[in-house]
Amino acid sequence: MKSKTRTGNFFEDFYPGMVLTHATPRTITSGDQALYTSLYGSRFAFSSSDEFARTLGFECAPVDDFLAFHIVFGKTVADISLNAVANLGYAEGILGVPLYPGDTVSTTSVVIGVKENSNGKTGVVYVRSTGRNQHGEMVLQYVRWVMVRKRDVDAAVPVVVVPELSESVAAGSLSIPKEVNLTGYDVTLSGSAYRWGDYSVGERIAHVDGMTIEEAEHQMATRLYQNTAKVHFNQHTESQGRFGRRLIYGGHIISIARALSFNGMENAFKVAAINGGTHVAPTFAGDTIYAWSEILEKIEVPERDDLGALRVRLVAAKNNSCENFPLKNSEGQYQEDVVLDFDYTVLMPN
Amino acid sequence: MKSKTRTGNFFEDFYPGMVLTHATPRTITSGDQALYTSLYGSRFAFSSSDEFARTLGFECAPVDDFLAFHIVFGKTVADISLNAVANLGYAEGILGVPLYPGDTVSTTSVVIGVKENSNGKTGVVYVRSTGRNQHGEMVLQYVRWVMVRKRDVDAAVPVVVVPELSESVAAGSLSIPKEVNLTGYDVTLSGSAYRWGDYSVGERIAHVDGMTIEEAEHQMATRLYQNTAKVHFNQHTESQGRFGRRLIYGGHIISIARALSFNGMENAFKVAAINGGTHVAPTFAGDTIYAWSEILEKIEVPERDDLGALRVRLVAAKNNSCENFPLKNSEGQYQEDVVLDFDYTVLMPN
Amino acid sequence: MKSKTRTGNFFEDFYPGMVLTHATPRTITSGDQALYTSLYGSRFAFSSSDEFARTLGFECAPVDDFLAFHIVFGKTVADISLNAVANLGYAEGILGVPLYPGDTVSTTSVVIGVKENSNGKTGVVYVRSTGRNQHGEMVLQYVRWVMVRKRDVDAAVPVVVVPELSESVAAGSLSIPKEVNLTGYDVTLSGSAYRWGDYSVGERIAHVDGMTIEEAEHQMATRLYQNTAKVHFNQHTESQGRFGRRLIYGGHIISIARALSFNGMENAFKVAAINGGTHVAPTFAGDTIYAWSEILEKIEVPERDDLGALRVRLVAAKNNSCENFPLKNSEGQYQEDVVLDFDYTVLMPN
Repeated sequence: MKSKTRTGNFFEDFYPGMVLTHATPRTITSGDQALYTSLYGSRFAFSSSDEFARTLGFECAPVDDFLAFHIVFGKTVADISLNAVANLGYAEGILGVPLYPGDTVSTTSVVIGVKENSNGKTGVVYVRSTGRNQHGEMVLQYVRWVMVRKRDVDAAVPVVVVPELSESVAAGSLSIPKEVNLTGYDVTLSGSAYRWGDYSVGERIAHVDGMTIEEAEHQMATRLYQNTAKVHFNQHTESQGRFGRRLIYGGHIISIARALSFNGMENAFKVAAINGGTHVAPTFAGDTIYAWSEILEKIEVPERDDLGALRVRLVAAKNNSCENFPLKNSEGQYQEDVVLDFDYTVLMPN
Repeated sequence: MKSKTRTGNFFEDFYPGMVLTHATPRTITSGDQALYTSLYGSRFAFSSSDEFARTLGFECAPVDDFLAFHIVFGKTVADISLNAVANLGYAEGILGVPLYPGDTVSTTSVVIGVKENSNGKTGVVYVRSTGRNQHGEMVLQYVRWVMVRKRDVDAAVPVVVVPELSESVAAGSLSIPKEVNLTGYDVTLSGSAYRWGDYSVGERIAHVDGMTIEEAEHQMATRLYQNTAKVHFNQHTESQGRFGRRLIYGGHIISIARALSFNGMENAFKVAAINGGTHVAPTFAGDTIYAWSEILEKIEVPERDDLGALRVRLVAAKNNSCENFPLKNSEGQYQEDVVLDFDYTVLMPN
Repeated sequence: MKSKTRTGNFFEDFYPGMVLTHATPRTITSGDQALYTSLYGSRFAFSSSDEFARTLGFECAPVDDFLAFHIVFGKTVADISLNAVANLGYAEGILGVPLYPGDTVSTTSVVIGVKENSNGKTGVVYVRSTGRNQHGEMVLQYVRWVMVRKRDVDAAVPVVVVPELSESVAAGSLSIPKEVNLTGYDVTLSGSAYRWGDYSVGERIAHVDGMTIEEAEHQMATRLYQNTAKVHFNQHTESQGRFGRRLIYGGHIISIARALSFNGMENAFKVAAINGGTHVAPTFAGDTIYAWSEILEKIEVPERDDLGALRVRLVAAKNNSCENFPLKNSEGQYQEDVVLDFDYTVLMPN
């Protein structure tokens, strides 16, 4: 009898145009948001207070944008990255309609590129994944590419297709609901008087605080997202693995860095786009994560004078306070304590 | 003045026919379900998505069946097992009406048997416990028996009463709501195309994944269930105890095993009965739990052709991948890494 | 360019009459209450069951009173105690309207006293903080005083103002909703038959159980309260600090002690006032917390014969079972295992 358990897709199973409808739709609740707060301590007023969100024209506080990201992402793991060696990058991420408690999210993916590696054992798969709510509205769309093992090293080599990806999401593609109006945005309640106009391209902000990760925390986070990649949960096998320890889901680091970025970017109330991102190095329980940001670009949003967008580089490092903005060495290689180099676009009141 | 703290009941306090109304009714919320997801990572679409549950005729996604079990069970601890030496077994467990967020659960128990042990220091107490919602509808009913210490070794010996218990819950006793209709069950969203008809008696499935338990996780789980058995929480006393460590609530292992069983039994969407179960060996933080299942029986459900039931043996082992289906040795004794031998009945679309 | 990150207020920034409107309003949900239950295992029927709360005249179960306290308190940290050396005491705490899931809490503080210390490096700041719901109704008001560092040791010395604080909240100041009626209070469901009349002044109760704290637990709790004091989260810096370890938020100990006090004070269903409190010694992950209570005063509530109030001393100790009621030695100094000496007023059915 054929085994009923899933072994996931291998490199040779993917082909451009392949559509994957991922399992386990997920209703998001205020309980998920409470857990998210307890895991990261995020303090952005917009996702903390229904009343604050209503003053901006939202029906209530949407859940945190990266909670939405992790939920959409988590569904793709069983089909795309169960046999992944590495998660290589993100691009063209667009946050669509806000995700409210009570909404149900489903994810589909389309393979948009495949490229075998020269070693013949692995290949890179590019997918565009789209999370939708119960009304079919797009909540999040993004491209990621992963290095996936081949099941059979002698399997036929697919024709190489490498998609052209934008370096960043254009201002015109940012999804900003018409009903949103920031004229009543309260900078006392949000925690900072600095608005869009106060930030300058090239400005760097070290976010001061650090957060030490415990095994129970990253496991609870990753299970909350129904992300089942084995390396995060199984010390019995990982103790024999490359690092001897459970590896922390890279998205956990993104969420920590975003929460830390509150200190200095309190009014970056909404994530609008994910332009790119690299998980530079693995993290483990016991690591203390710090973060710093650099303003890459100031983006005027068409037909809006109540808000603007900032393209931001968000860097996380472990066991390094980030006061000196760690990134790359003189040879262009990442410093060894850098763990995340993330490029995203946020909205701010003007 | 008499102490106001509770010392719990001892063996000689129990008698057949004794009725116990347990304290602390509990309103279940979507927050409880979110925590349950973060603790076990369960991916059954039915308890993950309101939309999915609605397509089957439910008003929304009920909470996980074992969350219902743990909540009902938790209330009984202070009255029944505070002085227990061991939780010996379960039988005749029937899941009744689904438990929805917002429902309030209360539990009562009736003592259905007592039997002193030959050592004169302990005895076995059999109770049938029933959890009901705020409308008085049965959510869960089950029998368990526990070995309880005597307060006074010279206390009078009660007449032995040992209940006759069914080996398994009969098909006719399974509680399947009339409004449920699985004809629209979506096997893409549920994660597997294998339906009731695809499983065979005797078939064994090793569920692949393993999950390592942290102290914070099992403590948070057990407190969520308001189960206050001391051995789970107090390292100060347990460091002097039999194991030198906090003991993990056996129900935590049931929930891990059930969540792991998704890989291979994705469409076992609903637990209908608990036929029996033994906590074979204790587990501790740091243990990695794996699980395997065996199909014991295929049960046709009267007057239903949209679904069938499977009686399943669910075995959990620690630090053993379960690829070889660990159970008992040639002398009929459990292998030392087996921690749970559970017998339950699940519903599956046909 | 001026740094956009916050360094918090220093002693010389505070002056009597200064009003602080704290950031990050917070909508409380059933998810927060679920997390609270999982962190402390509280079993008071009143905050566990909507049905139970309704029989007493409440619209549903309010969240735990100390969850309300922590949420209100958490907002003040960034403005008041980011540069604090020590949290010295509490007084005049009054619980106002119940906090229900869905309510949004904001906090403001008024500085009511300042006093420089003789070392010229620090001073004591007294603030009265008030948490309000979205209707502007007072949820909690309390005074606390903290020792805060000076930014500049040569800064001008403010005129000393030390507020006169009540030793305890008077019976007439207790806020008891008119719609509350305890005549239907069910002592079977609440877990104890002992009512207000059964407790005597001077009576001491050792609460039996102990709870060991894990790093993940106190971090998740403290982040849930959006309390960002660095000492709780950053092992990288704390490893170089005074204790070499992360310090546990004092409020976490209050909540553990309150949850433990259920065993012996099951019907102390509602906190009405916080008269005082001292965090006697720091606690760390791995400590096991026990608690005991002493009835300080029996308070008749004006115009109510369905309930009474008890003023209670709640003491927590670490790694000491509290059977011998640890407190102070013969020289009036706290015993070294005592960590909390708390004075609060609870309501009980009569």
